[in-house]
Amino acid sequence: MAKKIATQSSVALDTLAIGIDIGGTGTKFGIVDRNGNVLFSSEISTRGHEEVESFIEELYNSLYPMIERAGGPGRMRGIGVGAPNGNYYTGTVEYAPNLPWKGIIPLAKLIQNKFQLATVLTNDANAAAIGEMMYGAAKGMKDFIMITLGTGVGSGIVANGQLILGHDGFAGELGHTITIPNGRFHPGTGKYGSLESYASATGVTKTAIEMLEKSTEPSLLRDIPKEQLDSKKVYEAAIAGDELAKEIFDYTGKILGMALANFVMFSSPESIILFGGLTKAGDLILKPTREAMEQNLIQIFQNKVKILISHLKESDAAILGASALVWEIKD
Amino acid sequence: MAKKIATQSSVALDTLAIGIDIGGTGTKFGIVDRNGNVLFSSEISTRGHEEVESFIEELYNSLYPMIERAGGPGRMRGIGVGAPNGNYYTGTVEYAPNLPWKGIIPLAKLIQNKFQLATVLTNDANAAAIGEMMYGAAKGMKDFIMITLGTGVGSGIVANGQLILGHDGFAGELGHTITIPNGRFHPGTGKYGSLESYASATGVTKTAIEMLEKSTEPSLLRDIPKEQLDSKKVYEAAIAGDELAKEIFDYTGKILGMALANFVMFSSPESIILFGGLTKAGDLILKPTREAMEQNLIQIFQNKVKILISHLKESDAAILGASALVWEIKD
Repeated sequence: MAKKIATQSSVALDTLAIGIDIGGTGTKFGIVDRNGNVLFSSEISTRGHEEVESFIEELYNSLYPMIERAGGPGRMRGIGVGAPNGNYYTGTVEYAPNLPWKGIIPLAKLIQNKFQLATVLTNDANAAAIGEMMYGAAKGMKDFIMITLGTGVGSGIVANGQLILGHDGFAGELGHTITIPNGRFHPGTGKYGSLESYASATGVTKTAIEMLEKSTEPSLLRDIPKEQLDSKKVYEAAIAGDELAKEIFDYTGKILGMALANFVMFSSPESIILFGGLTKAGDLILKPTREAMEQNLIQIFQNKVKILISHLKESDAAILGASALVWEIKD
Repeated sequence: MAKKIATQSSVALDTLAIGIDIGGTGTKFGIVDRNGNVLFSSEISTRGHEEVESFIEELYNSLYPMIERAGGPGRMRGIGVGAPNGNYYTGTVEYAPNLPWKGIIPLAKLIQNKFQLATVLTNDANAAAIGEMMYGAAKGMKDFIMITLGTGVGSGIVANGQLILGHDGFAGELGHTITIPNGRFHPGTGKYGSLESYASATGVTKTAIEMLEKSTEPSLLRDIPKEQLDSKKVYEAAIAGDELAKEIFDYTGKILGMALANFVMFSSPESIILFGGLTKAGDLILKPTREAMEQNLIQIFQNKVKILISHLKESDAAILGASALVWEIKD
């Protein structure tokens, strides 16, 4: 009888999860229920903290009152953290070029000690993939690839219903796969021709500059000073009917599609889920991407793989993804 | 008490597994114990059977007497089959360009019905990967990639200790990933620039012909009629000190290494295990492969991934790999 009452009370006071998404500029965090409702959320600056200790301090001062409002730490299942170069196995962030803290940072441990709550950490794109699987476009899928097309290109790969982490926790760096041998230089990695150097917001800007220099084709983009060009302006020009701007997305989509074909021939996913700024260009980029993917796939893979756009609210997705890790914490 | 006796007798009469490896030319089969000893083995022609029914008939006539010699069907746990384009989920072989039987062949079902033994099937490279994990260079590894460098390039990927099969059972076609965009034409697939069109025995031969045509460099290979050139002759010339022959392996290794870097950035394996004819060229191909792989990896992956050569006896490996599937059959 006592057991039954306990069960009922735990149903009444549903357990919650905390999600923290650490980006180069800002850190978003929130408290999420099992159904993926973000009950509370807020944001602090990442960039403003040269020392990770002062970052943890501000995070605690902003997040702890939120935890209390949501029912106190006893109601929290734990904390999930998504961070660039985050390693699930070690809970560390290692040599993240876009974060202010250098070297290997034991971030999960620092957060766990401060909050006294079980903390798991993985890279931001892996967290996003788990979020999509629990609440988003990949619900019910056991094999899919999540690609984030933002300033950079991130990825999270799920096969047999599990995240592929690799022997060291660093699997899924698809943005760094070489797509054009001896191609465009990537200043962040020192490598040539990676997917990220083309199919990111940064890549689109570079393509725009290259195309404007190479051709004499008239374009709305010629009115914009080179240093002010960005993927959003290319998008606006394309929407306004600018042919050169359309060619920029076409070129980007062709390279992205070829890379996606390679990923499909690796893990044969049911779908590829795209997320992030570049997806706002819609069919301008998706059409050439789909075409190039199909064109490079061998027959057994053709016309099978869905390219889907994440339908999670962008402001919630990062928090949802990070919080989703928490439900996998074992007691 | 009865139960105890049963257990003892099953230990005394150890269960065995049957492995069948179907290739384009011949089909090897054998009976294997749990320790990976091939107790009996033999071979029949694949190519000689235009109809799959007559193939099954000859297989039965050759294999059944072997089963009886090994203790009868009651001692067999089941049959494992490795076949090109074999699908684990459906037990079918689909549109295999190198097999005489066209369309979709329900091979596992045909064999199971004929032998009245549980039968599982997968593609040959997946079977080889399982064989390496149970008996070979990948013993104890949970994350590795098996690449077979033969007439073509096959692959089997293990992550989190499981074969990656994909949503449809066709994952792991790494030989068909595009490595050189708009590169060499692959007559079997109609695609341009796939890894297989360079890093296979066929690819090495093509590279030899191209290099001999392009340069006027003296070479032992010039004494061989073009239609008799093959990767073995290139190897022999390289061993004899022929510079052009060495360049051919160097070129092949560079492309293979770049492709391997991409695979590493996908699933971050502990090792890549190479198997098949081209590996006999040893450091002639391995040195440029390793160098190109490291060169194309971003920092977090560098100097971590072992490239290993399978040490299973080539004649046994195919049978071992196929038989290894049997131990995964659930009762």
